[in-house]
Amino acid sequence: MRVSRRGEVDPFIVMDVIKAAQAAEARGRSIIHMEVGQPGTAAPAAARAALAEAMEGEALGYSVSLGLTALRARIARLYGEWYDVELNPERVVVTPGSSGGFSLAFAALFDAGERVGIGMPGYPSYRQILQVMNLEPVLIETSVANRYQPVPEDVAAHDLHGLLVASPSNPAGTMLDRDGLSALMDACRARGTAFISDEIYHGLEYDRPSVSALEVGDDAYVINSFSKYFSMTGWRVGWMVVPEDHVRRVERIAQHLFICASHPSQVAALAALDCEAELDRNLATYAENRRLMLEGLPRAGFDRIAPPDGGFYVYADVSHLTDDSLAFAREILEEAGVAVTPGMDFDPRRGKGTLRFSYAASTEDIREGLRRLGAYMADRARAAG
Amino acid sequence: MRVSRRGEVDPFIVMDVIKAAQAAEARGRSIIHMEVGQPGTAAPAAARAALAEAMEGEALGYSVSLGLTALRARIARLYGEWYDVELNPERVVVTPGSSGGFSLAFAALFDAGERVGIGMPGYPSYRQILQVMNLEPVLIETSVANRYQPVPEDVAAHDLHGLLVASPSNPAGTMLDRDGLSALMDACRARGTAFISDEIYHGLEYDRPSVSALEVGDDAYVINSFSKYFSMTGWRVGWMVVPEDHVRRVERIAQHLFICASHPSQVAALAALDCEAELDRNLATYAENRRLMLEGLPRAGFDRIAPPDGGFYVYADVSHLTDDSLAFAREILEEAGVAVTPGMDFDPRRGKGTLRFSYAASTEDIREGLRRLGAYMADRARAAG
Repeated sequence: MRVSRRGEVDPFIVMDVIKAAQAAEARGRSIIHMEVGQPGTAAPAAARAALAEAMEGEALGYSVSLGLTALRARIARLYGEWYDVELNPERVVVTPGSSGGFSLAFAALFDAGERVGIGMPGYPSYRQILQVMNLEPVLIETSVANRYQPVPEDVAAHDLHGLLVASPSNPAGTMLDRDGLSALMDACRARGTAFISDEIYHGLEYDRPSVSALEVGDDAYVINSFSKYFSMTGWRVGWMVVPEDHVRRVERIAQHLFICASHPSQVAALAALDCEAELDRNLATYAENRRLMLEGLPRAGFDRIAPPDGGFYVYADVSHLTDDSLAFAREILEEAGVAVTPGMDFDPRRGKGTLRFSYAASTEDIREGLRRLGAYMADRARAAG
Repeated sequence: MRVSRRGEVDPFIVMDVIKAAQAAEARGRSIIHMEVGQPGTAAPAAARAALAEAMEGEALGYSVSLGLTALRARIARLYGEWYDVELNPERVVVTPGSSGGFSLAFAALFDAGERVGIGMPGYPSYRQILQVMNLEPVLIETSVANRYQPVPEDVAAHDLHGLLVASPSNPAGTMLDRDGLSALMDACRARGTAFISDEIYHGLEYDRPSVSALEVGDDAYVINSFSKYFSMTGWRVGWMVVPEDHVRRVERIAQHLFICASHPSQVAALAALDCEAELDRNLATYAENRRLMLEGLPRAGFDRIAPPDGGFYVYADVSHLTDDSLAFAREILEEAGVAVTPGMDFDPRRGKGTLRFSYAASTEDIREGLRRLGAYMADRARAAG
């Protein structure tokens, strides 16, 4: 059968690592998982209880496409709690994960061939979804000096129809502050460039709160999800906030593209919004893990790291240690029993010299992983020296 | 903010009817719902119990993109049970509803501007998803004589890169028999046209079993879902069967576009596959409803109907009664207290003279709806005569 050109997307390189790690575990090896991008914890207990109850009393058929009214209202309230922003619930669109938000945003904003800028390093699916939607991903090389974030000059320099930023970012965990975000939005506004803000790691921050694009202006698409802070990756439920005059347009596209996000997942998500105590215990675990990482990684020899303001990743420049991060990751897996992600998923060009370490695992695992990394790197230095 | 041209999709006209019906109910009117395209029943009890149990013991994080291994294996077994087809479970891709299957199939098979044929009348989202994916929906006018299905000559006549058929169809419920399906697949094969078979209403049939494209050949994308026969619309979980040499390609696209279908929904879907007794009780209700409709609608004056082989809809030609089915549907809602769907959603040109009646409601509601329709049409005839 025929195939398309746009369907020729890059595989996730991290999948190779995950498969190799699983194979090693199947052979009886102990592997510490610093490659996975999701919490090990389940959805909050009260979220699961709310669904268990709803399943007894409701048919849970299609919801309206924009999502359950109560969920949209509660998400709007979250913007008051987190950012002191008063948000009209009508602007909230519940989506099948942030993945669903991206396709919906791209369909609503851009036509075939238009140029959408994304920072490198960045979440790999951005460029693949853009390609599948017939858009041109414009890879903007960012610098550590700019906290791995695009700068306002990039908008004109790359002649962008859209700019997508993530703060905290994946893989680096770096944030845009209010001034940085504001300057980017100004640059976009000046050229009629659409601004999309991926805020999926909001809530997972350690020194200072993340800034939402909605604190700066209303002319943005803001994408978020219950996957990370709310610990519900597998539930595939997220949301998007759009300008008021875009709601009907986005609703019509969502009716056809998804019909609705999973109704059971929406019920659980609504309850998860009131599980702050449990979620803050998860956050305390990440904070301790991060402390251990920032201490242990440099000690092991991974000392060129971006400041991980939020999320649960550390991105390390290892170009002084290797020019093939995939081979290096395989070696670390094989020799140290620690699974880590090579950088090429996030930055096709410079990723040959970078690794991403996730600290979403348990603190016990993080301690053991750092011990193994330390011992392995010491051996490696001895062998080289 | 800027917007796209492709995002200018048609609204669902049925939504106007649903809103008007809800408004009437809010005013205290009793409304019988023959407009909705979903079962009123919940997911099978054992499916809900399986999820309740899994929520206590598993984190339910991301599944692999192709879906839970056990679910893919069980779906493959269903092809043995339903069609006596031996199916390699590797070919099964679990999707976020059949909606997810369509975007995935279109991305894997077609590039921007390519032409995909769909029969009119047909499911409205086909043409809208095609537009959002930068494809050209080619609307093939079908005839009652051909059971509202495309014919082999259409493939060459319309110079198609792809052909999408649905059997049983929505809105008409008409089926392609084995010879009809085979002839269409031959015509596609001869021209290198991709063949996509929407089998979402399989399992809901009354006189003879539906034929799957997989009984005829392996060179097709087959799309199905847990929404209809399995009574799980709101759970957003479906599946697609693709040729063996397409699996890796589709997997890579799915990794980026969706990550995975809702993990909790997958757990429930797996258990639903073994709930035949409960699901066949639902089917018996539809069968009785269908019998009442085929008797009651003609008696009420809706006597030009396509043979509804499967699904839970009757599509009626009312062009002798009106040239504005939207106004007619409003009138029926207002005067008779029965919500029905005007045909324009399914056939922009000829739908002005058609209505769709759903019989997915309870038998009690169907009886009452038919009584109301009969009384109203008798009044209308008296007023006219």
